[in-house]
Amino acid sequence: MIKTITLIGSGNVATHLGKAFLNQGVEINQVYSYNKDNAFELANQLNAMPCDEIKFISDESDAYFICIKDDYIEDIAQQLSVKNKIVVHTSGSVPLQILNQFENHGIFYPLQTFSKEKDLDLTTVPFCIEANNKKTKHALLEFAKTLSNNVHEIDSEQRKKIHLAAVFACNFSNYMYSIAEDILRQEHLNFEMLKPLILETAKKTQENSPKAMQTGPAIRNDQEVIKEHIELLNDSKKHQEIYQLISHAILNSSDISK
Amino acid sequence: MIKTITLIGSGNVATHLGKAFLNQGVEINQVYSYNKDNAFELANQLNAMPCDEIKFISDESDAYFICIKDDYIEDIAQQLSVKNKIVVHTSGSVPLQILNQFENHGIFYPLQTFSKEKDLDLTTVPFCIEANNKKTKHALLEFAKTLSNNVHEIDSEQRKKIHLAAVFACNFSNYMYSIAEDILRQEHLNFEMLKPLILETAKKTQENSPKAMQTGPAIRNDQEVIKEHIELLNDSKKHQEIYQLISHAILNSSDISK
Repeated sequence: MIKTITLIGSGNVATHLGKAFLNQGVEINQVYSYNKDNAFELANQLNAMPCDEIKFISDESDAYFICIKDDYIEDIAQQLSVKNKIVVHTSGSVPLQILNQFENHGIFYPLQTFSKEKDLDLTTVPFCIEANNKKTKHALLEFAKTLSNNVHEIDSEQRKKIHLAAVFACNFSNYMYSIAEDILRQEHLNFEMLKPLILETAKKTQENSPKAMQTGPAIRNDQEVIKEHIELLNDSKKHQEIYQLISHAILNSSDISK
Repeated sequence: MIKTITLIGSGNVATHLGKAFLNQGVEINQVYSYNKDNAFELANQLNAMPCDEIKFISDESDAYFICIKDDYIEDIAQQLSVKNKIVVHTSGSVPLQILNQFENHGIFYPLQTFSKEKDLDLTTVPFCIEANNKKTKHALLEFAKTLSNNVHEIDSEQRKKIHLAAVFACNFSNYMYSIAEDILRQEHLNFEMLKPLILETAKKTQENSPKAMQTGPAIRNDQEVIKEHIELLNDSKKHQEIYQLISHAILNSSDISK
């Protein structure tokens, strides 16, 4: 059973997980951040001790959650000395093997987009769990289930694909919103107008396959509107290219099922 | 005051508007569709008379709502003979002038994505209103306000831009969901897993600028993950191209403000 935790990182994921752990009665021993202020701020919220040097991370917690940028995970892990305790990272794309030095290691990947400013109900968030041995896997699965009703055992290869899918579903769809915002701003129109549409489009996926719900000029091969839209995008070659490529892909999507 | 209406069309927009009109105590006189069954079905729902020939459309309604595919609006309008009654279409991209033959004509464009299967609260839907004269504009604005708290006076040029923005915000974001679904399906993973992420990404736009909320490998210039993702997409050149183009655009978005 995981009852005490050390958080390594003080960003969005560390903040949301830390709060959820605390709500479950877990004790957060330490919060590490290389940035002292951030360490203090999050530690303070979680009744934990702040720490800004890896060597001062105590080995007394049941589990260590590395919630930092992908690029730094390996480096931080190599400096961490916590014997046989459980060490996990929360990244979608970094392989399990990066934590090989630890006797008990795993992945604790929440498939969600986190912002510090926005509270989030973790109970519906999918958690992707992986571990190097049965005991650790069991501990992580059980622990994740105290936070969420949506816990999955996922290997590193699958997790990579899930992360890739998430880039399309989250990062790229958000960029589409961002282009829409640009287009409206140029006309001095308020982005507010698009908010009900954005929300409804996302809501539709909750009950229907997005493929079946595809609408717009491209899927109905409305060349006149497509041509006009490309002209309207005349002052941004970048947006024109994106419009053309995606429209073309949608237009052909009915006969390309792969 | 618009108190009686004839609906021309029986698709998603006609269905949702018709129901909302009825709820406001408006009488729907006739529902026209070239498809007799569809005319009967919607007419039946709206306590209206079905009609499958334009020449049988009576001229007794206060207003005529043309809710059909863009390509057919001009043709249908030319066959319609309703004297000085108000005639509007509900399209985002067809100009006002297409209805020039009518003494009182306008646009009644609901900026939303409609599915017959899914009920929708119209009170928050933005309605874009335009008309060829003051009297008609006033009548349409007042009428739209009985349905929604989000009514705007928008000219045809602005409406085109709004429609273009909506293609990005709705059609293209939905296509991003659709690619994500493909990627998961190939791994025999359930699309269900992405639903909380999709919804949360859309919800974030309700309170924050999407530009400020951009996350993912591209915005943090994580070339290692980007490279790996492009390799993972090896069996779909189409998805690879989209990934590369959008990632490149996101990567450069900080210094391209236009």
